[in-house]
Order: sequence, then C-alpha cells, then structure tokens
Amino acid sequence: MTNAVRDYVEAHAEDLYADLDAWLRIPSVGADPDRADDVRRSAEWLADALRRTGFPTVEIWETEDGKGTAGLPAVFAEWPSEDASAPTAVVYGHHDVQPVDPEELWTTPPFEPTVRGDELFARGAVDDKGQVAFHLLGLAAHLATTGRQTPAVHLKLLVEGEEESGSPNFPRLLADRRDRLGCDVVVVSDTGVYGRETPTVCTGMRGLTDCQIDLHGPDTDLHSGSFGGAVPNPLHAMARLLAGLHDAEGRVTIDGFYDRVVKLSDRERDLLARLPYDESAWLRTAESRATAGEAGYSTLERIWARPTAEVNGMWGGYTGPGHKTIVPTDAHAKVSFRLVADQEPADVQAAVRAYVERSVPAGITATVHFKGPGVRPVLSPIDHPATRAVVAAMEKAFDSEVLFMREGGSGPEADLAEVLEAPVVFLGVGLPDDRIHAPNERVVLPMLLKGAEAAAHLWSELPGAIRLA
Amino acid sequence: MTNAVRDYVEAHAEDLYADLDAWLRIPSVGADPDRADDVRRSAEWLADALRRTGFPTVEIWETEDGKGTAGLPAVFAEWPSEDASAPTAVVYGHHDVQPVDPEELWTTPPFEPTVRGDELFARGAVDDKGQVAFHLLGLAAHLATTGRQTPAVHLKLLVEGEEESGSPNFPRLLADRRDRLGCDVVVVSDTGVYGRETPTVCTGMRGLTDCQIDLHGPDTDLHSGSFGGAVPNPLHAMARLLAGLHDAEGRVTIDGFYDRVVKLSDRERDLLARLPYDESAWLRTAESRATAGEAGYSTLERIWARPTAEVNGMWGGYTGPGHKTIVPTDAHAKVSFRLVADQEPADVQAAVRAYVERSVPAGITATVHFKGPGVRPVLSPIDHPATRAVVAAMEKAFDSEVLFMREGGSGPEADLAEVLEAPVVFLGVGLPDDRIHAPNERVVLPMLLKGAEAAAHLWSELPGAIRLA
Repeated sequence: MTNAVRDYVEAHAEDLYADLDAWLRIPSVGADPDRADDVRRSAEWLADALRRTGFPTVEIWETEDGKGTAGLPAVFAEWPSEDASAPTAVVYGHHDVQPVDPEELWTTPPFEPTVRGDELFARGAVDDKGQVAFHLLGLAAHLATTGRQTPAVHLKLLVEGEEESGSPNFPRLLADRRDRLGCDVVVVSDTGVYGRETPTVCTGMRGLTDCQIDLHGPDTDLHSGSFGGAVPNPLHAMARLLAGLHDAEGRVTIDGFYDRVVKLSDRERDLLARLPYDESAWLRTAESRATAGEAGYSTLERIWARPTAEVNGMWGGYTGPGHKTIVPTDAHAKVSFRLVADQEPADVQAAVRAYVERSVPAGITATVHFKGPGVRPVLSPIDHPATRAVVAAMEKAFDSEVLFMREGGSGPEADLAEVLEAPVVFLGVGLPDDRIHAPNERVVLPMLLKGAEAAAHLWSELPGAIRLA
Repeated sequence: MTNAVRDYVEAHAEDLYADLDAWLRIPSVGADPDRADDVRRSAEWLADALRRTGFPTVEIWETEDGKGTAGLPAVFAEWPSEDASAPTAVVYGHHDVQPVDPEELWTTPPFEPTVRGDELFARGAVDDKGQVAFHLLGLAAHLATTGRQTPAVHLKLLVEGEEESGSPNFPRLLADRRDRLGCDVVVVSDTGVYGRETPTVCTGMRGLTDCQIDLHGPDTDLHSGSFGGAVPNPLHAMARLLAGLHDAEGRVTIDGFYDRVVKLSDRERDLLARLPYDESAWLRTAESRATAGEAGYSTLERIWARPTAEVNGMWGGYTGPGHKTIVPTDAHAKVSFRLVADQEPADVQAAVRAYVERSVPAGITATVHFKGPGVRPVLSPIDHPATRAVVAAMEKAFDSEVLFMREGGSGPEADLAEVLEAPVVFLGVGLPDDRIHAPNERVVLPMLLKGAEAAAHLWSELPGAIRLA
C-alpha cells in the first residue's frame, strides 16, 4: 500500500508542479487593495483545478464584514464518500499570499516560479499554495491506489483568501456556512515539520492580533532649533512606548498580558526537549547572530508556547536623503502580538489600548487601530484519534517515527474548532527555513510529494480512527 | 535720517519683492543631490543681483571637501568704502533651502511664491533668501540717503549654499579664503526677532551635530510567528536606544554630554525673563498641545540655552498598507543634537558613538554616521560695540526699545568667529511663527522692510562704533 501511493505520487509529480507553476504566477497579495482582482483570479484558478480533480461540488464563497464591505473570496469544494457512514473531514488552507517587499532582495521575481535544484522559489510556494496543491495529487493517489470512485471520507475543502490579513471575515463565513461545513475533523494544511529529517505532527498554533499605533504631536513639523527641547516629540514618545513593551527579562509589561496563558507542563517541556535542537543551526536558519527573548524559556518554547509583542514596522519624521532637523508631527508603529492558549485576542486588545493610553505624555494624542478581532490560539490534544491518524499517515509517508511540535504562526484554526465543534489536526510539510513572509520564499518539492502521500494515507486512516473514537 | 531711509525703502519695496519672486522660484534644496543644479542656479541668480546692485566684485566660490568631492557654491561680493579707514563688515547668509516634504501640506506650491495679505509664502522666504535679499534694498537705501558713492563700511557678503546641510565645507572655504574675508565684524542675517512687536537682538545660537543610526539584526526579514520572541528585533533595539537618550527629568543621558555646557547666570536668566512670554500663545505658534523638556528650565531657556537630543526621523520594517508580521532586518533613525557654548561637536559625536555601542544588544550591529564635523555653538557679548551698533540700527528701524534674545537654531557662526577672528553680531527679522523647515514657510513682508532699514542704518552706525572700540 505504501509503495503504491508513493509510486503513484512520484509518477504524477509533474501534474503537481504544473499546477503550482500556473497558480503561483497569480499575485494574490491579500493585504494590498490593488491586488484584490488577483486574489479573485487565484480563487477561480483553484476552483477550476478542483473541478478538474473530480470534486462534484465546487463553489466560490464571497466574504463580507457584516457592514456590506466585500472581502476576498474563499473556495469551497465537496466530494461525498460512497460510504454514507464515513466521517467527514474539512481540509483548510489559504490561497492569499504575503506582500513581497523588499522586492529587490528576491533572486528571481516572486511571481515567476523558478526551480533551482529540488526547490521551487515563489511567493506562496509553501505558504500556502503548495500545501493546498499537494492535496489534489494526494486525493488522486488515494482514489487510484484504493480503486475507489469516491474518497474514503466525506471530503470538504475550504481555502480562504484572507489568511495573511488575519482572516477578518472568516468567523462570519464559518458561521454563515456552518450547515455546509459540518464535519468530524478539521485537517489544517498550513504548517510544517520540525525538519526534513525529523517529521513531526503539530499540536498547536499561536494566535495573533496586530495593530497600528499612531501618535500625533505638534500639528506641523517644527524646526528643531526653534522648538527642539521644549515640545513633546512624537518619535520620542513612540520610542518610549515601544521600548516599554518589554522589561529587562524580555517579559511583556502590558497589564494582564499573561493572565490566561496556559503554563507549559513538565511533560510538554520534556516532549519538546526530545527534538534535536542545534542553536547554531537555528541561528543560521534565522540568519540572526544571537537568540533573545523571555528569560527562563528555551528558544523552541519561546517561539511555540509563549506569547510575544513584536514591532513589525515603525516610521515617522524625515526619512529621506540627508538631514532635516525637525520635531515631526507624527509617529507610527505596527505591532503584532502572538498569543498562546488560552489568551483571548479581545482581552489583549483592550490591555494594549490601556497601555498606550497610559504611555503617552501630555501633548501627544494616540490612536490604536486593531485589524479585525484577531486570531485565537489553538492547542490540540496529542492523544486524539484524529491526531493519531495523522501520525500514522505521516509515518507511512516518511518511513520514520513522527514526533510532536507546535507552530509559532497563526491561523483561523481556533475559529474552525469553535464554530465547527470539531478537533483540529495539522497535516503540513513546510520547513523552518522556507523563508515564508520573506524574500525568496521556497518550497522543497520532495516535501510536497511527502505531503501528497500523507494525505492519500490519511483518507484511508481516518475512517477506522474516527470509528474507534 | 530715519524717515529718509524708511521713505526710500518703502518707495522701492517692489524691487525687493520682484527679486524674491524670481529667486524663490529656484528650488535650491541643498540636501537633495538631484537639486545640485538648482543650488547652482540660485548662486548665479544672486551673483547677477549683486552686480546689478553695484558691487564691483562678485564671485562664485566653489566648495569641496578636501578629498576632491565638489560641494555647493557660495557667493562672495565686495564693495570697498571710499573711506580707507572704515571698518570692514562681512554679511553672512545662505541661499540653499530646506526640503519641502510633505509637499501635500503646502497650501500653495513651495517654489511658486504667493502673497496672501502681507505674507509671502515659499520655501526659503525667510530662511534665508528673504534675509539676504533685504540687504540689497538696505544698501541701496544707505547709499541714496547718505549721498555716498560707496558704503560707509568696507562691505563684503558671503552667502553660502550648504547651510541647511550643516555647512560641511564652510570651515575649509573660510580657511582657504581667509585673505579675502578679513574683517572687523561679521553680521549674520539668518535669525529673527522675538516678536513682531518685540524687536530684539540675538546674542547667541546653538550648535548642531546630526547623525543617522543604523541597526542591523537578522540578515532576512523573519516571520514573526516562526521566529518572533526568540531573535533580537532591531526595531526593539532602536526603540530602547532612542528612549534611553533621555531620563525621566528630560535630561540627556549620554555620558559627558553636559560637561562643557556654560551654565545660565542669574543675570542672563533675568534678561530672558524680561521678554513677554505667553505660554498659550507660544503653544499656538508651535501648534503643540503641551510643553515638554528638561526639568528646571523655562521654555525659552530650553530652546535657547540648553542642549538637546532630538529624533528627527525613524523607520524600519513594514510600513505599507495592511500588516506584515515580520521581525525585520534593519532599523534606522536620524538624530540631531543642538549644542550650547562651550560644547564641542567632536566631543558630542564621540559620546554618542559610545552610547550607541553600549546600547545595542547581542545579535544587533550598529553603525553611526555623522554628517560632517557639526556646527559649533556661539555666544556674543551683549556689550560689544558692534552689538550696540546693531541695537541702535534696530531701534531706528523699529522706533522701539530693543531687548536681547538667543536663537535655538544653528549656523556656521562659530566658524566665522573663529577663523575670521572677529565678533559675530546678528541682524535678522524672522518671526517665531514663520514655519521655517516646515510646510507653508512664509515671511512677513513689512519685517523684511524693517530689515532693509536696519541694514541701511547699520552701515552708518558701525564706523563710529568700531572706532570707539
């Protein structure tokens, strides 16, 4: 059985590569309003591909914010099993991609997919078009190697177009379409493994909420000779505000920030410690010269199991060539907060607003704009039958023991779990050094084939696992 | 005599306005390398205007940095007095102007001079083309009302083109041309009065040194989900570095920063306190909602007699629309330091470098680039005969008692004093709310006429004053 799936996947690998080459050329940058048409073209491309794969039902689902403003479209597909009693799985992924700047740092253009060795370079190669695309090949392998006309599970796909924007309209979409999305398990394909030689199954993801903070000082740029030293400078206020987010131990200082954080148990810490970790290799991957962060935690714990406050951008005043000696009117920062179970984004947003309000000096006004309600963190039990089915499928694909890890990134997994009342498991084959969100994002093509294999196995594993539950 | 000068100036005001209209259309932004040709055109325009006014010697002086890189040109003019024993005065001003961004905040385009009421709006209207231009009319009035064929002083003008860039090549120019610039007094026309109804003579200016600080962290933008919380973020490091520049009392924390600062004497504080000061009016001028700064000093003391560290710009990471959850590679800031006597820019530069070096955490590399050697502060004794001559000339122009003040801004006055071994006095008619360096810079036209009157009187006053010395 294992060999049959592998043989099929390897024999049809070119189908997957051709799909990706076409799809990755569509610059579906969800955060850029000028790219909305491209996100739509991306959805239409995927819908066509799903029809071609055999899904009898394929629909493009529009999103909106509840106030009449249109969002970016998701793609839904459904292929019922001929076994009426089979469990239902919803595969989740996304077809929008991150912005590409600084574009000049890309070796080849971000929307011209380029293969070098066994790597494919393009924006979205692994996050997340590659990991959606492997399901098409995986499903074909499942059908061909089992001789079935329909999958062994009632299969649904939901591939959204706003994930990189924090999925602002996804909870509404889930709630509105709940009757179509009923399921026994959600399979998220937007994560990765610990390493190419260390296959793992992910048990949790961090949540996220991000904001822009705007500080306004004088109503006009002031000559620093005439006024400097006597008026509040919004850049100084912003520097103090941002510097004050962390104490000397690297802990976030915002009141109540850690109140609902689930502490790491000794058992979890032991499990994480079983993973091979080489700090110098990790630093090479990060292209960083040092680690940093919250005192008392390892690097893996910091990125997977601890919440953060991270400044993603800041700007204000004169930033052009030469010098302009002003006290400027405005300062801006984009700050994101990675959350862990059981932090609630709404609580964190309120605490951040209170922190900013308390931080600004006289003469400076502050506004804080959070992008949407944020993304909840999620933790999945490692002993759940569905999780065990994923482990079994991964072990067949990789011919290897599979350990556990978490993902530090964020997605709408908690909304899926909450609205659909189903466990969330993770089937992903990204690698830590795939440079997602950065220039020269790539996917390792053999990993995509392993993903297709694991998916093919998972549809065969799940019926027995879920029946046992 | 007073009336004759005033009558002449008012009868010929249109000559001054026509000069300014032509000159202000030349966008001589010295800090912008793309505007170098415009700075050159500005110098040539002034040279033509000086020849037209009657100066027998007019030259354009090129500048360079001593390593063969050309700077921006200065204009020199000389008109010897027929009285061989007359003292020699060098008038100093500049013809380069500040950048104009944000250009969209200008009511009318910055290089299309526009009169509204008695105000003329344009970049450079008061800083400093207007204050150079009034000398042309003032000299004509001096000659016409005294019936002289030559000025009562040996008159020299030196109008540089790099003042807004910190005059990087000016000390070299002064040293190279010292034989041509020999003088008994330097008259600086690049400052202002305390208020339209409170004429003053300036006794000092702050110095300046400014730098760009660049921090480099990871060599690639990192996904804050995968790496956030475990690598040093250069934006955090920059926020801490900038926030740490001041303590809770508003004092600059850099080691040794205040070591050479001349303390304000009680007499100076009393003199400054005689000036009418209305905090709410000052705040309206600053368009600021509050004052701020070093504890223990008044607003006027803070801007005139105390040194500062001011962040003029900062940027790094993602600053576009939407959100991009990265740990970025770089953070940047432009920071300027206003200095007071007897601080030495070179000392401050060394202290800032040491501060930055000490402030950056492991994994972050810092570079500090200072623009040139900086500008020294200057203080002129209020009892010097030349200062008294300026006071007398201003009192005739304004029909009013003249008090003293200082300027918080910076220019190459200290270099003039040091290289030319002559006292520096200030003849300027700018107003605090002229918005120099900001959008909608303006000059109040009647103030320019007072400047022309004062200049006309000064050339008559100086021979007696200097002979008395």
